[in-house]
Amino acid sequence: MAPSRAVFTAASRTAVTALRTHPPSTPIQRRCISSFGYEQAKCLVLPNFGEPKDVLRLHGHSISPPTGDLLTLRFIASPINPADINQIQGVYPTKPTFITSLSTPEPIAVGGNEGVAEVIAKGGNVKGLEKGDWVIMRKQGFGTWRTHAQCKAEEVVKIEDKSGLRPEQVGTVSVNPCTAYRMLRDFVELKPGQDWFMQNGANSGVGRAAIQLGKLWGYKSINVVRKRESGHEQLVQDLKSLGADVVVTDEELNSKDFRDKIKELTNGGREQIRLGLNCVGGPLVNNMAKHLSPGSPMVTYGAMSKQPVNLPMGLLIFKNINFHGFWVSRWSDQNPQQKEDCVREILDLTRQGKFQDIPMDPVTWEHTTKQEELVNAVQGALEGFRSGKGIFLFKNT
Amino acid sequence: MAPSRAVFTAASRTAVTALRTHPPSTPIQRRCISSFGYEQAKCLVLPNFGEPKDVLRLHGHSISPPTGDLLTLRFIASPINPADINQIQGVYPTKPTFITSLSTPEPIAVGGNEGVAEVIAKGGNVKGLEKGDWVIMRKQGFGTWRTHAQCKAEEVVKIEDKSGLRPEQVGTVSVNPCTAYRMLRDFVELKPGQDWFMQNGANSGVGRAAIQLGKLWGYKSINVVRKRESGHEQLVQDLKSLGADVVVTDEELNSKDFRDKIKELTNGGREQIRLGLNCVGGPLVNNMAKHLSPGSPMVTYGAMSKQPVNLPMGLLIFKNINFHGFWVSRWSDQNPQQKEDCVREILDLTRQGKFQDIPMDPVTWEHTTKQEELVNAVQGALEGFRSGKGIFLFKNT
Repeated sequence: MAPSRAVFTAASRTAVTALRTHPPSTPIQRRCISSFGYEQAKCLVLPNFGEPKDVLRLHGHSISPPTGDLLTLRFIASPINPADINQIQGVYPTKPTFITSLSTPEPIAVGGNEGVAEVIAKGGNVKGLEKGDWVIMRKQGFGTWRTHAQCKAEEVVKIEDKSGLRPEQVGTVSVNPCTAYRMLRDFVELKPGQDWFMQNGANSGVGRAAIQLGKLWGYKSINVVRKRESGHEQLVQDLKSLGADVVVTDEELNSKDFRDKIKELTNGGREQIRLGLNCVGGPLVNNMAKHLSPGSPMVTYGAMSKQPVNLPMGLLIFKNINFHGFWVSRWSDQNPQQKEDCVREILDLTRQGKFQDIPMDPVTWEHTTKQEELVNAVQGALEGFRSGKGIFLFKNT
Repeated sequence: MAPSRAVFTAASRTAVTALRTHPPSTPIQRRCISSFGYEQAKCLVLPNFGEPKDVLRLHGHSISPPTGDLLTLRFIASPINPADINQIQGVYPTKPTFITSLSTPEPIAVGGNEGVAEVIAKGGNVKGLEKGDWVIMRKQGFGTWRTHAQCKAEEVVKIEDKSGLRPEQVGTVSVNPCTAYRMLRDFVELKPGQDWFMQNGANSGVGRAAIQLGKLWGYKSINVVRKRESGHEQLVQDLKSLGADVVVTDEELNSKDFRDKIKELTNGGREQIRLGLNCVGGPLVNNMAKHLSPGSPMVTYGAMSKQPVNLPMGLLIFKNINFHGFWVSRWSDQNPQQKEDCVREILDLTRQGKFQDIPMDPVTWEHTTKQEELVNAVQGALEGFRSGKGIFLFKNT
């Protein structure tokens, strides 16, 4: 745990708690809460689809005290996921909801789908949630790039035990770790200590989660990465320290040497590579599929290369490789209880130090942060400027 | 049933029976059985892989009387399947077995994988099979383009009730009808009277079988065919008379009109198209997959266009279409009892007039038939010269 993050988080929560118990007299308080109990919220919104830098703008509005089954939330940490950007571009299958309830003349949608927030006020009918509780979103499409939100209690899932967890960890648990978890479990029953899986994009958030969960569950992994001009050896070491058994470049994957190496690794072929995970697409998928045992599933959850998979029929008919997709939004919508269980299990592992979150590149979002800075953070994530996963960390909001 | 075929078949069997009970004095008898009880067999063999016209040759050898658990078979009908030709070309994943036991100086393999034969003699340890019984091959790779064969009893499956069946029907039941049967049953549970399937190559042996089985089981079908320059309307009528609900060309499939028509056919989308069957490959598969309901399987069992399937990731991830292969050889090797049951059920339906075999283009194979004629029949099947499925019908052998 990075000390600076821990300090920030603790300080941030203390400040918020203070805000609720003292009269509105200091400049910080003036920014965050009006004298009538209204929250002064800001959010990154889009009035229509387009490139983030062209369509996103910072919008301010006020939130009245919650009644009935409503909650008021203050966001703590909200990541910038690739799917969030595709959604802004209008190329994602689920569209954000455009609303006029945030005091805009035209309908707008709030960006972002994942995050962790703190309950700061609740209506009289809300059961099982208290001020100070941390929550995550039950479904995609919430709009999490915002300082505050008001919603129904049923739209969130309470984090039962937030002890020992950083907001960044809780705010990024729903998408990538859950994706890795389900893909390793739901398509084939891998035998611990015996079966292997092979994945590309091994350095991605999902890839790193799959390595760690695989290691914990006894599934060995062959991890395909692009060759880096610099820092390649460090990357290999990073992935191995997470538990990767083998790290290989996409070029090496196809060599005769590697085929021999796989034979050696799998104990002369007595162990099997029984699952493929793909977030890249293109010819790499075929090259991976060739190494899978007959009858194995190849599960696609992303298309970073923007190339389709070109399936030779022999792989389907004679080798019986079967091709599936995994979409975490569909899974969580269809399996709400399974999602809660999966999140709790991963957070337990995180608390025990058995599961590490991915490298992050935090962007502090204060009440005074300018629109340009926030929009640049989103556009930068799209263009690969960032050194880790972009994540908004809210401070003094 | 074509009367000429029935007449031929009955005559053929009568002749054979006669051969076994009379002394070897007539010319016909001299051709078929030696005075010492040896069968004079002929078979189409290959010494190495290549084009059928270049490598196939007619080979004669004698078969001694069976002992122990051996049977001597006389073939009655053996089809020419596309996979047989691929196997001769050496491009099929299972290779024929090259042997020297048929009295050749170099190893040779016998062509053909499917067929029906009559037991004409048995060793003392054979139980449950009698002279006159009809049998089919338990596994692929038997080598069925031959007048006679000797094999172990366990290599064949007895046809328990051959009454009312023509040899062509029994000789072609193992591959195409079984493929259609399993694909309609093993990948998704279709609801009778409610669910649809969509298939390309609807005029193929498997396609025609799927139409008929679908009709019997209450599954509605959308059948994609290539536009024929001539005889197209006749083809549409043929498939409809078998039970096809909708017949459409690959061009029509993509039109806006057809999308509207599908909506209308499926009761405004309340009925679902829940299974795709593909033996063509190429872009057509994507165009079909777009019409399937989310979560549906697309099962590939052939690649007539020789084009791979180009899978856009969105179909996999967001629409959850999953892609599988079906290979009847693997299925029958792994499920011998299921194969026996499936064959029996289809033959029962055939006997009841509920299941029609496909149009066939018979090639008579007599003891005097020349090599050239037999090899041309195989090459012609490859080059699409034939008007129906090529099938060897053995006569006076």
